[in-house]
Amino acid sequence: MKNLILTLSLFVSVSLFSQIQKVEPSFWWKGMKNPELQILVYGKNIAHQQIELSNGVQIKDIKKVENPNYVFITINTDEINVSKFKINLKDGKKLVNSYEYELKVRNPNSANRESYTSKDVMYLIMPDRFANGNPANDSSKNLIEKSDRSNPNGRHGGDLRGIINNLDYIEDLGATAVWLTPVCEDNEPRTTYHGYAQTDLYKIDERYGTNEEYRELSQKLNQRGMKLVMDYVTNHWGASHWMIRDLPEKSWIHWFDQGENGFMRSNYKTTSQMDPNASAIDRKLALDGWFDSSMPDMNQKNPLVLKYLTQNAIWWIEYAELGGFRVDTYPYNDKEAMAKWAKSITDEYPNFNIVGETWMYSAADISFWQKNSKVGEILNYNSNLPSVMDFTLFSEMPKAFSETDSWDKGLIRLYNVFTQDYLYPDLKNMLVFFENHDTERWNEIFNSDPKTYQLALTLIATTRGIPQIYYGTEIGMRGSKPKGGDADIRRDFPGGWKGDSQNAFVSRTDEQKPFYDFTSKLLKWRKGKDVIHNGKMMHFIPENNVYVYFRYHNSEKVMVVLNSNEKDQTLDLNRFSEMLQGVSTGKDVITNKEFSINLQNKLTVGAKSSLILELR
Amino acid sequence: MKNLILTLSLFVSVSLFSQIQKVEPSFWWKGMKNPELQILVYGKNIAHQQIELSNGVQIKDIKKVENPNYVFITINTDEINVSKFKINLKDGKKLVNSYEYELKVRNPNSANRESYTSKDVMYLIMPDRFANGNPANDSSKNLIEKSDRSNPNGRHGGDLRGIINNLDYIEDLGATAVWLTPVCEDNEPRTTYHGYAQTDLYKIDERYGTNEEYRELSQKLNQRGMKLVMDYVTNHWGASHWMIRDLPEKSWIHWFDQGENGFMRSNYKTTSQMDPNASAIDRKLALDGWFDSSMPDMNQKNPLVLKYLTQNAIWWIEYAELGGFRVDTYPYNDKEAMAKWAKSITDEYPNFNIVGETWMYSAADISFWQKNSKVGEILNYNSNLPSVMDFTLFSEMPKAFSETDSWDKGLIRLYNVFTQDYLYPDLKNMLVFFENHDTERWNEIFNSDPKTYQLALTLIATTRGIPQIYYGTEIGMRGSKPKGGDADIRRDFPGGWKGDSQNAFVSRTDEQKPFYDFTSKLLKWRKGKDVIHNGKMMHFIPENNVYVYFRYHNSEKVMVVLNSNEKDQTLDLNRFSEMLQGVSTGKDVITNKEFSINLQNKLTVGAKSSLILELR
Repeated sequence: MKNLILTLSLFVSVSLFSQIQKVEPSFWWKGMKNPELQILVYGKNIAHQQIELSNGVQIKDIKKVENPNYVFITINTDEINVSKFKINLKDGKKLVNSYEYELKVRNPNSANRESYTSKDVMYLIMPDRFANGNPANDSSKNLIEKSDRSNPNGRHGGDLRGIINNLDYIEDLGATAVWLTPVCEDNEPRTTYHGYAQTDLYKIDERYGTNEEYRELSQKLNQRGMKLVMDYVTNHWGASHWMIRDLPEKSWIHWFDQGENGFMRSNYKTTSQMDPNASAIDRKLALDGWFDSSMPDMNQKNPLVLKYLTQNAIWWIEYAELGGFRVDTYPYNDKEAMAKWAKSITDEYPNFNIVGETWMYSAADISFWQKNSKVGEILNYNSNLPSVMDFTLFSEMPKAFSETDSWDKGLIRLYNVFTQDYLYPDLKNMLVFFENHDTERWNEIFNSDPKTYQLALTLIATTRGIPQIYYGTEIGMRGSKPKGGDADIRRDFPGGWKGDSQNAFVSRTDEQKPFYDFTSKLLKWRKGKDVIHNGKMMHFIPENNVYVYFRYHNSEKVMVVLNSNEKDQTLDLNRFSEMLQGVSTGKDVITNKEFSINLQNKLTVGAKSSLILELR
Repeated sequence: MKNLILTLSLFVSVSLFSQIQKVEPSFWWKGMKNPELQILVYGKNIAHQQIELSNGVQIKDIKKVENPNYVFITINTDEINVSKFKINLKDGKKLVNSYEYELKVRNPNSANRESYTSKDVMYLIMPDRFANGNPANDSSKNLIEKSDRSNPNGRHGGDLRGIINNLDYIEDLGATAVWLTPVCEDNEPRTTYHGYAQTDLYKIDERYGTNEEYRELSQKLNQRGMKLVMDYVTNHWGASHWMIRDLPEKSWIHWFDQGENGFMRSNYKTTSQMDPNASAIDRKLALDGWFDSSMPDMNQKNPLVLKYLTQNAIWWIEYAELGGFRVDTYPYNDKEAMAKWAKSITDEYPNFNIVGETWMYSAADISFWQKNSKVGEILNYNSNLPSVMDFTLFSEMPKAFSETDSWDKGLIRLYNVFTQDYLYPDLKNMLVFFENHDTERWNEIFNSDPKTYQLALTLIATTRGIPQIYYGTEIGMRGSKPKGGDADIRRDFPGGWKGDSQNAFVSRTDEQKPFYDFTSKLLKWRKGKDVIHNGKMMHFIPENNVYVYFRYHNSEKVMVVLNSNEKDQTLDLNRFSEMLQGVSTGKDVITNKEFSINLQNKLTVGAKSSLILELR
């Protein structure tokens, strides 16, 4: 509420003297590992006044910038013995304005909080399109774009309450971590439902709910042993962000004098980050060009920007009790600054997981971005980023499952992806997925075939890493970018809106069942399987478009068979003797059927089917 | 000749006592960096007799193996003061047989010989299919397969004399290094023209000529400042090799008890060399399985095999005054042994270049095999192999030049290949090529279009590395594997045989001219261009299927434009200001036409054409 009052005062301030219109972060905590805190104080010509802190609190540093409406003061929270003090704005001796600053007490064990790991399955939700729990907040008088469910690219009213109301569904599906696309305020005029053009980084968009509701969602997930993963955007803010409209310094963003309002589009060729042959102009456009005209590109090389992004990220972790980050458009950022950003966060929270959207096209280029990568070391780079997305697996999967097999087609593509696992420093911390909110829906590619979906899910749920699924695919939802644009792959979840003709949260149609039931069964099984979370992998060269691999460690062993052949296939088990020696039974984790295993046996796997056997 | 006599004696030996039937190497040199020499002495039950050396030469070690027909004696050549000594075979005190061993004097500067580098252009010849200089050796009474030019897979009579006779042609084309597919004896019953199933590693196949002629070819190349590159095969020998027919030890080759005569086919999945998930059986079949049934797979883990391969390689370098190796099927070998093999050779000849046939499908996997690779380091591996083949460029080129452009199609494929240059430890030492004797001919793919050939040649002749071209393509030769098998991509060069209807060595038809003239002009220009040999590269993201890059260093600058668009394209030079600042003219190296360059100018490039401008 305080933020709201300050925001309003921004527009009514006609005082002769400066007023404190914004303070960010609006509060902080005592007992952080890094005791230094930089507080942004904003107000018309505020840099021309004096700032003092009450209760004897010392200002360690005060930084003024090009724009006199900003002052950045640095304090040391370890040296402050009070929980509240005042930021006083003075004109000579006259007190003009003051802001009460609070240093809160941290939750016990906050620093050592758990985060998502290979034990988890991540469920990706686009909140505007999942469930409308509170129709009263579908539009807000403070925010430009109003609800319009008839517009595919409009706001449909989905919100945090809708997610909170459906946690049983998510948990019952077997997901344990929930990644929401950005939910901070995005007050652009249109297409704001995706949230990537944020206009206030400290405030949940009112159409999703409140900061308190966001924390409530996180807490309710935590009570279930689940985690909330925030989609953090370091690369760009919305053009309507209040700071973009009144830049502290021109260098706050990447400004192109030749473009309108500083805009030049990125060329999206982020390989220029590593490319020794890249021209300076191509590299500059890749990194400093804007992702879109509504998204000014942040200059993380500016230490004030980097500090702002770092403190904001930590603020959300601490405030909302987060269980992880997903970071948007990772390779578009300044990589040295991002290495510092990730280090600052993981220094505060050593178990905290952060996965970057490392949308590159080779294992080497993806590995480059993972913490302690030997590939990064080639260029003396260490990202400090714990987790990366396996975009090579993602891009090979649709081809692998749609082709008949040859030397380089069909399931051999999956085998080939995993042959490069040596390039990654932390295989367990790879996000594995076959679709997300930016890609064609799997069920669109495969024409709602549950069998191909089951094959794909089997793969990502049993290979190394952290499986990520995308809301709705578990009930067979489709969506085509070429046909319907982004909106089509972000359709409303059936049952999320009062009056929906079907409620898939409650029960599934006959068409949806083969998707949902398989997902729920498999993911729940996965929860308890340490061998899947932490085991090694051994795979065998696909034959007849059948790919066989094992996950194993000292005490457990699982055999996975993916048959992408249009016919049933019979395997000679002797080929797998390295793994099957001493094994006598295999229990199908979906049907619970027991198979007798011995090396002289054959095993038959149905056409376009998978088999996951717990071996004993 | 001595070899021949010994070989014959192999078949007539019915003596009660052993005879020395073979000694390998048959002679050696004094003054090698590694003074240790292991001499194989072969004869029926020879291990049951005594061996002594004359002139007081000491035997340092004598090794007997499973098969009593072999003895391996080790001497230290530094300790021997005579140039000749006898290997005496004795039965008690009785001298049974003796062999005069010679330690020759090395050529001056042999150790520091030059080898091929990025200054060179490599011309790949299949000797049986290039030119028949000596019809008298087309068949040999000693060798099974006789000449039959009517059989596409038969021996056609091409030979070393044919190459020697046409050195003017090769030099005039602008090539400076000549890689011949293997020329050692291949006395298998059929399809021996390719030479990869060698049956005597110390003897040139009589149908190609003699050891002396091979050395003559090398010397004549050296006199022209050119180099002879031997195609060395460590991975397999021919099934009819005399040692394979009388194995010293079973472990000399990889023997599969379940296969006929030890044969199991390789699965050809050499990524199992690095793959942490590979099963032991898949890895074993990849590395130990045979490349073909006629090619037993050598076990380089056996120290005697490794020593044999090492000494044989050094013997050829020293004897034939070689300028480099190309090594066949590199990743199929035991990689630790191969690292020792390459080190032994480059310890003797520090400038000697060796390029491995690293036929892998990603830059990371190719980089793995190059000396001092950081990618290799991930698995604690250092190959010591100086040069690797750029198979990613090779596999992208036909697609790049046949597609219209999009986000990931057309010339962007070339750009994408070069973005990964950071992965390689020695970019200058990459072999760049668009075809070879195992692949579809470029002119087949592009339907004899000289323009597309000129684009491809421009690329490999001006990018980093060592360009390799394949005989006949420079006159537009075609050949299709799917249509005509290997034989079709290895057709006879026109004019190499008396009575050929056309002699392209002497003059070119109107159809051949655009291929030949462009090649000769470009490669001759390249010879003197240090900036191409050693300069850096800067490239720009392709636009409209036009790819522009520069090679540059302190004193020289070259601009290369590849227009794969079906229409003329006009470039705004201002985009390249990083490279064009201060430049006033650009001279087309093919037409010698001068262009005035300034940043406000436009430059027009014809449809499907390249432009190479020397900038000043």
